[in-house]
Amino acid sequence: MKIDLAKLDVAGAHGFMVGAILPRPIAWVSTIGEDGVCNLAPFSFFTGLSSKPAVVGFGVGAKRDGRKKDTLVNVEFSKDFVINIVTEAIGAAMNKTSGEYPSHVDEFKEAGLTAIKSDLVKPPRVAESPVNLECRLLQILEFGAPPRINRFVIGEVLLAHVRDDLWKNGVIQGDKLRAVGRMGEDFYCRTLDRFEMKRPKIGP
Amino acid sequence: MKIDLAKLDVAGAHGFMVGAILPRPIAWVSTIGEDGVCNLAPFSFFTGLSSKPAVVGFGVGAKRDGRKKDTLVNVEFSKDFVINIVTEAIGAAMNKTSGEYPSHVDEFKEAGLTAIKSDLVKPPRVAESPVNLECRLLQILEFGAPPRINRFVIGEVLLAHVRDDLWKNGVIQGDKLRAVGRMGEDFYCRTLDRFEMKRPKIGP
Repeated sequence: MKIDLAKLDVAGAHGFMVGAILPRPIAWVSTIGEDGVCNLAPFSFFTGLSSKPAVVGFGVGAKRDGRKKDTLVNVEFSKDFVINIVTEAIGAAMNKTSGEYPSHVDEFKEAGLTAIKSDLVKPPRVAESPVNLECRLLQILEFGAPPRINRFVIGEVLLAHVRDDLWKNGVIQGDKLRAVGRMGEDFYCRTLDRFEMKRPKIGP
Repeated sequence: MKIDLAKLDVAGAHGFMVGAILPRPIAWVSTIGEDGVCNLAPFSFFTGLSSKPAVVGFGVGAKRDGRKKDTLVNVEFSKDFVINIVTEAIGAAMNKTSGEYPSHVDEFKEAGLTAIKSDLVKPPRVAESPVNLECRLLQILEFGAPPRINRFVIGEVLLAHVRDDLWKNGVIQGDKLRAVGRMGEDFYCRTLDRFEMKRPKIGP
């Protein structure tokens, strides 16, 4: 079966991409606007781009009516954001924040979450999330044409917060983190069904 | 626990990033070099950047000695690549191709895989992978400074191949795909432990 991506409509192309590229980590992004209202929303086109320097990026599609999402407006204003990692315990709260609320709504309050002041950036971080990445905006890539432009927001991780019990020998304990991944359609996956494969040793 | 990413060495920063950002989809990237030798290697800093246009990107770190990896050299030469999706059935073969083989080694042969000619790009695709994305290079971002520059390769998906039995009602069946995700250290995860959460309906 051959699929010409350019011939799919917006919904079809999105359905294809999220069904083919998975499991995806979730960037639960907190931002703050010019009016001081905080925003919190999940994005699953999310990855590291480089480890050192530590650079991350997440994709922000246009709203259904073509306007910019609050997350994007806020990042363009404050030039920073926090990525909060999503675990099983806070999956339902994350999902609550995935609705298209009006701009004046603070999703922290809407989902019953605790906003803690960040150390280096203006947006608060989510207290209930065990890993928070304080990031400074580096650049925003644009794809497509008006009225539907998709953006990919790239930032440097300035400081990370990790819940003490998850940190051991310099790494986050994956089996204790219980991160949640994003699949296609309305599906998510847990990450405890793990297996290990050692990288082959090649060369001298 | 606060972690200043800039103070970590290369291995420490990489360990942090792959332990915090997970589960990650795997881009098993096939490329072809100026000498006609094919390369196949997995990268897990991989995501969609936009659905329409369909844009994907993957991160390529420097080799341990600072030189460019074969995948990067080949993409810079041919301006295209194929992303092959990794499933449980071909996880071990994927892992075989993760070693740092000399440039003259064809990882398709090394891992016992079948290279099929692509329709629109020069590198072949992996027959054993049920989803292949033929991509044309759009741009390469650079992070860091010599001798260790990390790159993020961005391309447009021109054509997708999906195994017939996986395609239903315009989407890939996630439960049949059995994709494998990348975790921290040497761990991977399966994706059958799924659950569904409907996005809240907000607004008019």
